[in-house]
Amino acid sequence: MSKHLPFGDRRDAPWYGQSIVSVSQFAPADLEYVFGVAHEMREMVGRVGSFDLLKGKLLANLFYEPSTRTASSFTAAMMRLGGAVIPINEVRYSSVSKGESLPDTIRTLEAYADCIVLRHPQMGAAAEAAQVARKPIINAGDGVGEHPTQALLDLFTIASELGRYTPKAGLSLDGLTVTLLGDLKYGRTVHSLARLLSQFGVRLNLVSPDILKMPTHIKDELDRADVRYVESTNLEDVLPASDVLYVTRVQKERFEDEAVYASVKDAYVVTRETLKAAKAAMVVMHPFPRVGEIAYEVDQDPRAAYFRQMENGMYVRMALLAMVLGKA
Amino acid sequence: MSKHLPFGDRRDAPWYGQSIVSVSQFAPADLEYVFGVAHEMREMVGRVGSFDLLKGKLLANLFYEPSTRTASSFTAAMMRLGGAVIPINEVRYSSVSKGESLPDTIRTLEAYADCIVLRHPQMGAAAEAAQVARKPIINAGDGVGEHPTQALLDLFTIASELGRYTPKAGLSLDGLTVTLLGDLKYGRTVHSLARLLSQFGVRLNLVSPDILKMPTHIKDELDRADVRYVESTNLEDVLPASDVLYVTRVQKERFEDEAVYASVKDAYVVTRETLKAAKAAMVVMHPFPRVGEIAYEVDQDPRAAYFRQMENGMYVRMALLAMVLGKA
Amino acid sequence: MSKHLPFGDRRDAPWYGQSIVSVSQFAPADLEYVFGVAHEMREMVGRVGSFDLLKGKLLANLFYEPSTRTASSFTAAMMRLGGAVIPINEVRYSSVSKGESLPDTIRTLEAYADCIVLRHPQMGAAAEAAQVARKPIINAGDGVGEHPTQALLDLFTIASELGRYTPKAGLSLDGLTVTLLGDLKYGRTVHSLARLLSQFGVRLNLVSPDILKMPTHIKDELDRADVRYVESTNLEDVLPASDVLYVTRVQKERFEDEAVYASVKDAYVVTRETLKAAKAAMVVMHPFPRVGEIAYEVDQDPRAAYFRQMENGMYVRMALLAMVLGKA
Repeated sequence: MSKHLPFGDRRDAPWYGQSIVSVSQFAPADLEYVFGVAHEMREMVGRVGSFDLLKGKLLANLFYEPSTRTASSFTAAMMRLGGAVIPINEVRYSSVSKGESLPDTIRTLEAYADCIVLRHPQMGAAAEAAQVARKPIINAGDGVGEHPTQALLDLFTIASELGRYTPKAGLSLDGLTVTLLGDLKYGRTVHSLARLLSQFGVRLNLVSPDILKMPTHIKDELDRADVRYVESTNLEDVLPASDVLYVTRVQKERFEDEAVYASVKDAYVVTRETLKAAKAAMVVMHPFPRVGEIAYEVDQDPRAAYFRQMENGMYVRMALLAMVLGKA
Repeated sequence: MSKHLPFGDRRDAPWYGQSIVSVSQFAPADLEYVFGVAHEMREMVGRVGSFDLLKGKLLANLFYEPSTRTASSFTAAMMRLGGAVIPINEVRYSSVSKGESLPDTIRTLEAYADCIVLRHPQMGAAAEAAQVARKPIINAGDGVGEHPTQALLDLFTIASELGRYTPKAGLSLDGLTVTLLGDLKYGRTVHSLARLLSQFGVRLNLVSPDILKMPTHIKDELDRADVRYVESTNLEDVLPASDVLYVTRVQKERFEDEAVYASVKDAYVVTRETLKAAKAAMVVMHPFPRVGEIAYEVDQDPRAAYFRQMENGMYVRMALLAMVLGKA
Repeated sequence: MSKHLPFGDRRDAPWYGQSIVSVSQFAPADLEYVFGVAHEMREMVGRVGSFDLLKGKLLANLFYEPSTRTASSFTAAMMRLGGAVIPINEVRYSSVSKGESLPDTIRTLEAYADCIVLRHPQMGAAAEAAQVARKPIINAGDGVGEHPTQALLDLFTIASELGRYTPKAGLSLDGLTVTLLGDLKYGRTVHSLARLLSQFGVRLNLVSPDILKMPTHIKDELDRADVRYVESTNLEDVLPASDVLYVTRVQKERFEDEAVYASVKDAYVVTRETLKAAKAAMVVMHPFPRVGEIAYEVDQDPRAAYFRQMENGMYVRMALLAMVLGKA
């Protein structure tokens, strides 16, 4: 009766009707497929701006916490495909927050929309929503849980920038050295990216202050996947061999003691000077917003890929929307 | 000069340009007409999802108080008809609340949009807006006043679920027994529904705690319309003969004394056990959100119609938008 | 590589890709061009409501402070041209306000959208945004700075109402007497309008309480442009000769001392009685919202142009959007 297939089963099924909850749903072949569609989306937007692939489809953009960037990116993605968006940003004031359960809200919105993008402060919220929904749910961040579309766009950017994905040759990331820099403890983004990368023959450098090191459970995953990685507090040592420098923000909210925050927030600031030691073809990335980790002067450097990364976010989300709505 | 007709005159005129302010605008023939259009909308959405009946039309969704559910339903209705929506949710921060009068706000928005959906905390606001507007106003709730589109979708759901409306046979509700349960004192929803039902040969059971009984002025209306009704504090007695069980939430906001609220809030909880005594074809409804009045286990029961009720809300609103914009 | 041209150079270039930051970008020939397009927009909306000139284009409506009126007007303008709008109203809650710089936010949004409308509390914000953007920025108000689209719609209204613009005869405002009334000190609106008018052979009456007189730097500009103007505290003297009466609101926020506010707020209230002394063809305007400066009874007077002024706002914004997106 329902077109929704539980996301655990997605391997043998097309993506039509699927929810996207976790990066663990994406094996290398899936990534190659997503990137193929995202690549086409980028080509089409470059040529015509928008097109009517999802005309008549409705997306409910359900944000329990604000995220202008992610909400706008999904909105633009849906609109560039000719679809429409119901924006729901005011959850804290609405009936939804007056004690209504997430499942009831989801079942309400799927009475109106064809797909729901969900941002929620609690880990597991997206999985809970996908469980009850008959329409596809796309996880746009569930607290300290996951933010799978961010990880996908990050990987797509790495592959695009370094020529490691083409429609003909497919996806090949083997041999790359990726340096993750900054807050590796609380950064949901780098955790998901590390997990995706662990499916390939890459080498990781994990550079952070001692109190913001990559958590053990992620390192255990890397070990199980036989990924070679080095932990360090020092960027200089690992920068010259890096193909990717992925910079993250140290979030003040994470620290109870302001003095501790102050001591680490500027531990690593990437400047024009920093990049002198880097490869000419290295890629500098950042999930944004930035607040000082990358100097503005770096923006002019051709290696600065963070604005293209953002644009790729729109293409990857266009791809995912088209896929789960059966139009890819 | 103006295409707007005062809503009091609507009986002999088509709905084009009309405002929808009160259920009192809907005689049985009007209801039959609305349900016919809503029925077509449901058929069309089932077949094609969306279609361009209102392409190029703009709806201003003006919400002075938040109501995610109603706002989303109107938004989806307009978008599924190919129209566009100007969302105005931030009234409390905006110039509008800086002392601007409702008539000025309405006259501003009708300079931009073709139709205005208005949610306002004050009774009579929709009528005041309709008075000054040259474009149609649709009342989406005016405080303790009315919420006519909710009452229409409730009645459409009763008729649809029980086979009491078909395009061929028309609308026939005679002989039904409808049980209204919960907060009958403050529930705007049940007041409007009771008024609509009073035009038909139905029997009403009014089941509530003593302090939340149906107000006298509504009962007077029922008396004048010769509707047979029974008041009771006991659901068991009336459940077996009911064709519809309409459950409402007891709203905490209504009580000054929290102890009194606590004493009545769980007076009636509908569970799987409760429904054992009900007819096999009974319909369980709820305007939502629910906070415990209907156990989640009931959702699997085929008699649980509340999610279909929500979907019907979209079809009824599609019908009303098409009607007042001259496209039905 | 970029289609964006710095706005200072716009004289010899078409408007495609340009930002609109200041009224100083508009010489009489530019005004005539804008009004020509706005005139066509009004004709088209009158005939067909909406049309697909900007189908597939995306506008990011970035409001750092709320302004329902301006935001709705731009939204309606974009939608009536078949384009789509990404609404961003919650800047104060969003990542944007978590220390992200305006340039980073602009560069993010231009990754998604084709054009950005910016409302910001700080003077100079729009110019700063236009500096970094590769896509056109339209200034929708930057604090005590400018609000150029308001000034353009004001002038378009004057020209339209008085028959001083027609596609054939072009724009001719020479000989008009325009009276600006109310708060001339803090009113950004009247400053920009005075600047635009100073390019024509008009006569200005500046009528205000003594403490709310037109600032010297604006009067200096009028002097340099050889505009004849009279300052006065008395409306009666100048009203009979006026072709335009432009009324403004005295904003409470501007006064530290509430008693001073109380003493001037009702200094000038335009009533039906007031208008008896005015020309039969005079135009009464107001940028809205009003809070008592113009009595409601005046709305019925054919000289009351403020609701048409609002509608003209939509046509002027449609024109500007079409121009900067290369479709005018």
